[in-house]
Amino acid sequence: QSSVTLSGTIDAYAGSIRMAGDAGRKSVINSGGMTTSWFGFSGTEDLGGGLKAGFALTSFIQVDNGTQGRFPNDTFFSRDANVSLSGGFGTVRLGRWMAPNFLPSVLANPIGDSFVFSPLILHKNVPLFNASGWQATTAADTGWSNQIAYSTPDFGGFKANIQYQFGELPGDNGKKNVGANFFYFGGPLLVTGYYERNQISNPGQGTYLGTTRDDWMLGAAYDFKFVKPYLTYGRSDVNLGTAAMVNLDKGKTLQVGVSAPVGAGKVLASYAMTDLSRSDLDRKTLTVGYDYNLSKRTDAYAMVMHDRITRQDSGTSFGVGIRHRF
Amino acid sequence: QSSVTLSGTIDAYAGSIRMAGDAGRKSVINSGGMTTSWFGFSGTEDLGGGLKAGFALTSFIQVDNGTQGRFPNDTFFSRDANVSLSGGFGTVRLGRWMAPNFLPSVLANPIGDSFVFSPLILHKNVPLFNASGWQATTAADTGWSNQIAYSTPDFGGFKANIQYQFGELPGDNGKKNVGANFFYFGGPLLVTGYYERNQISNPGQGTYLGTTRDDWMLGAAYDFKFVKPYLTYGRSDVNLGTAAMVNLDKGKTLQVGVSAPVGAGKVLASYAMTDLSRSDLDRKTLTVGYDYNLSKRTDAYAMVMHDRITRQDSGTSFGVGIRHRF
Amino acid sequence: QSSVTLSGTIDAYAGSIRMAGDAGRKSVINSGGMTTSWFGFSGTEDLGGGLKAGFALTSFIQVDNGTQGRFPNDTFFSRDANVSLSGGFGTVRLGRWMAPNFLPSVLANPIGDSFVFSPLILHKNVPLFNASGWQATTAADTGWSNQIAYSTPDFGGFKANIQYQFGELPGDNGKKNVGANFFYFGGPLLVTGYYERNQISNPGQGTYLGTTRDDWMLGAAYDFKFVKPYLTYGRSDVNLGTAAMVNLDKGKTLQVGVSAPVGAGKVLASYAMTDLSRSDLDRKTLTVGYDYNLSKRTDAYAMVMHDRITRQDSGTSFGVGIRHRF
Repeated sequence: QSSVTLSGTIDAYAGSIRMAGDAGRKSVINSGGMTTSWFGFSGTEDLGGGLKAGFALTSFIQVDNGTQGRFPNDTFFSRDANVSLSGGFGTVRLGRWMAPNFLPSVLANPIGDSFVFSPLILHKNVPLFNASGWQATTAADTGWSNQIAYSTPDFGGFKANIQYQFGELPGDNGKKNVGANFFYFGGPLLVTGYYERNQISNPGQGTYLGTTRDDWMLGAAYDFKFVKPYLTYGRSDVNLGTAAMVNLDKGKTLQVGVSAPVGAGKVLASYAMTDLSRSDLDRKTLTVGYDYNLSKRTDAYAMVMHDRITRQDSGTSFGVGIRHRF
Repeated sequence: QSSVTLSGTIDAYAGSIRMAGDAGRKSVINSGGMTTSWFGFSGTEDLGGGLKAGFALTSFIQVDNGTQGRFPNDTFFSRDANVSLSGGFGTVRLGRWMAPNFLPSVLANPIGDSFVFSPLILHKNVPLFNASGWQATTAADTGWSNQIAYSTPDFGGFKANIQYQFGELPGDNGKKNVGANFFYFGGPLLVTGYYERNQISNPGQGTYLGTTRDDWMLGAAYDFKFVKPYLTYGRSDVNLGTAAMVNLDKGKTLQVGVSAPVGAGKVLASYAMTDLSRSDLDRKTLTVGYDYNLSKRTDAYAMVMHDRITRQDSGTSFGVGIRHRF
Repeated sequence: QSSVTLSGTIDAYAGSIRMAGDAGRKSVINSGGMTTSWFGFSGTEDLGGGLKAGFALTSFIQVDNGTQGRFPNDTFFSRDANVSLSGGFGTVRLGRWMAPNFLPSVLANPIGDSFVFSPLILHKNVPLFNASGWQATTAADTGWSNQIAYSTPDFGGFKANIQYQFGELPGDNGKKNVGANFFYFGGPLLVTGYYERNQISNPGQGTYLGTTRDDWMLGAAYDFKFVKPYLTYGRSDVNLGTAAMVNLDKGKTLQVGVSAPVGAGKVLASYAMTDLSRSDLDRKTLTVGYDYNLSKRTDAYAMVMHDRITRQDSGTSFGVGIRHRF
C-alpha cells in the first residue's frame, strides 16, 4: 500500500503590476503572490535501526492559467525530484533539490518566498524582461539538478547542508556547482547564511555558465514577539546579460525588514537595496503589506510595492490574494 | 495532513471516425468518447463562521496514447487551476475555470460533454482540421484563464455565475472576456443559458482575438421519467478562419435531443443544426446511442453519428467504449 | 470518494558512465539505475458478477533533474494510460500499455528493467547517440499507444496477452502493430516469450515506420534457490539508421545471466551478445552487481558494466544508487 502524501500550495491574487523599467501597468489575476504555487508527492519509510528512506516529487504551477512550471521550459518536477537516506549521521540526498541560496533567503526576510512581492527574492532570483534588463544576482536558480547533498543532524539548533551539483559535461572536465548553507535556531534568534560557487545553469540538465560566479549572504532575525526585525547582507557576481557571459559585475545586496502581529495577522515590511558597482546602477525596492490568517492553512494578503532602478521608470504594484495549503 | 481528493475520468473507445469534410475513414482507439478524460486534485477547508476555502487542479489527458492535454500546446491544468472562498455570500474564485458557455451546453443536450459524439458540443467547441475548415462557433474555449468569478448562492434552485477574464495585455488597454450563465433546477425542469463577450483567446495566457465576438445560448430540458427532451438555441459570431480574424460570420445553432431509460441504461439521441448566414453554409449532425451503466462509476456506450456540412463529403462515425470515474 | 492508488518508484544513482562508442567518460547523478523512475495513479472497481473495471495512468520521470518523460518529447503518461474490463473471460484493455516485448525481456534477465545496466534491455531498447549509432533492436518502444489488448485468465500458471495497435492513419490503410506474449510460472521455472510485427512507431500517436519489422524472443529462468540462471534468445529486424528506414539488418541476441542470494541481497550478473549479420558488427555487454535490500520497498545497489561494439572504443561504467518504491 502507498504511503505517499499529496500536498501543495495554491496561491492567486488580483493585482496591478508595474516593475521598475516597465513601459506600462498591467491588471492581472496572477499566481503565487506570496508563495509560488506547487503540488507534489512525498513520503518516508522507516527502514529500522534508525534509518529512513524518503523521496519528494514536487512541481511548480501557475494557477492563474493552469500552466505547468514557473516559466517556459521549466521542468515538471523542478521544485523537488529526489530520494534520500537518513540516519544518525544526517541525510544523503540524490537528485534535484533546493539550491543553497534558497532557504536562507526565504527565512531571513519577512515576505518569505514571494517571487512577486519580496524585495530580497526579486533582486536575487527574478530577472526582469523589460527595459531595465535586470538579471537575477544569484547565478544558478533556487534549485539544483544532479545533486548529491549532505545534511547534518541537528546540533542544538544548528544545521548545515553541503551540496554538489555534477556538471555532467562529457570528458569529466570538472565543471560543477558547489555550495553550503547553515541555520541556527536559538529560541527567538535565527542566524543563517550560504555560499555558492556556480558554473552550471539550471533548471533541467544545465549547461556551462561560461564562467565561475560566486554568491554569498548572511542573515538574521530576532523575534521580540511584538516585532520581529530581519537583516541580510550578501555579495554576488552578476551577469550583465552580455552574450559572452564573462563580463561580470559585482553586486551587494542589503535587506532590512520587520514583521509585527496585528489582529489575526501580521504587518510585513521589507526594503532591499542592490548596488552594482561596475555599471553604477542600483535597485531599491520596498514592500509593505498585511497577511491575515483565515486558518492555519489559509491566509489572505494585501501587498503594496515600490520598485526603483537607476535610469529606469520606477513602478508601483499592488495585489490582494488568497493562499491555501493542502 | 493533506485533505486533498484525487479524482478523474478515464474514457476510451474503439471506433471508426469520418467527420464531414474528411477525405477518408480512420479506425481508432481514441480517448474521451463520452467525457474528455481527466485527472486532478481538489479540496476544501472549513474556515469556521460559514466560510470555506477550496482549490482545484485538474488536467485533461488522452488515454489512448498517454499524451497530456486536449490538443498540442494545451496547458497542463487547463481544466481547472483555481482557489476560492465560499460563504453565505456565494463563492469568489481566482484562476482558471470553466467558461460561461460550458456547463449550460453540457446540461442541455443528452450526450453531455462528449467532444466526439455530442452534435451541440461539436458545432460549438471542436474545430475540424480538414477540407471543411469548420471553426468552433464559441470564440474562447470552454475554460478561461486569469478569471475572477462570482457564483451566487442557490436561490430555490436558481444559481448564476458572473465571470471576468483579465486580458493581461500591457498598458491596461481594457481587453477582456466577460460573461455570465444561470441554471434553474425545478424538479423535472432545467432551464439554463449563458452570454459571453470575447476578446481574448484561450487556453494558456491568451492573446487578443483581434475583434470582439458575442456568443449566447438558451437551453431547457424536462424529465418526464420515461423520456427527457432537450432543446437549445443560440447565436454566435463565428470566425471564418481568415488571417485577419475580423471577417465574422453570424451563426445560429439549434439542438433538439432526447434520452429515455431502457434496461440498465439510456437511449440517447441529439440533432444539431448550425446555419452560417454570410457563407451560406450549414452543418447538420445527428447522433444516436446507448449508454449502459455497469455501476454508478462505470458505463459502457455505443454511439453512431452522421455529420453533414454544405459542399463537403458527409461522414458517418461510430464508437464503442468504456468510461470509468474515480 | 476516490479509490485511487498513488504509487511509483524513485531511483537515483551516482556513477561514471562510458558506453561503447562514447568519446569520453561522464560523472553523473542520474535517474533510474535499476528501474526507470515513475509515478502514477491506478484503481479498480468491483462491478459485481465477477466483473471489474480498472484504470492506470503512470508517468516516467527523471529524478536527477526533475524532467518529465524518459527522453525529450516523450508523452506524459507514456508508461500507462488505459482503462480495462476484467472477468472470467480475462481482461480487455483500451489505451496505452506495455508492448509485448517488455515483460518477457524484464523477467528473463537478472537485472530486470534497468535501462542503464541490464545488457539485454540496453541492446533491445536503448539507442546510443554516439559514434556507434547503435539502434534499439526492438522497433516500436516498450509501450504501445492506441491498443486493444486481450489478456487470458491464468491457466495453471500459464498466461498470455494478444495485442493490437491501431495505426490510425487516414484511409484505413491497415498499418498496425500486432504481437503476443506468454508466461509460464511453474514453481521454480519461468518460461516466457513474445512475437511482434511492427509498422508503427511509438510513443505518442506514432507514425508509419516505412517498413515491417519482426521481432521475437524466448526466455527462461530456473530458481535453484542458491542460484537462479537466466537465458534468452531472440531475433529482430534492425534499422541501420538510414533515412529511408528500409535497409534492415538481421539481429540475433543471446543473453545469459545469474542471480544468487548473498547476505540480505543478491549478486547479479548478465551477459548479452547481439550479432548484426549484414553489417558484420556485434555488441557484447557484461554487467556484474550487488543489490542490497534495505526493506521490502527500498534497496541500494552497486553495478559495474563493460560494453563493447565492433570497431568502437569500448567503455566501462559503474554506479551506486538507491531505489525506493511507494
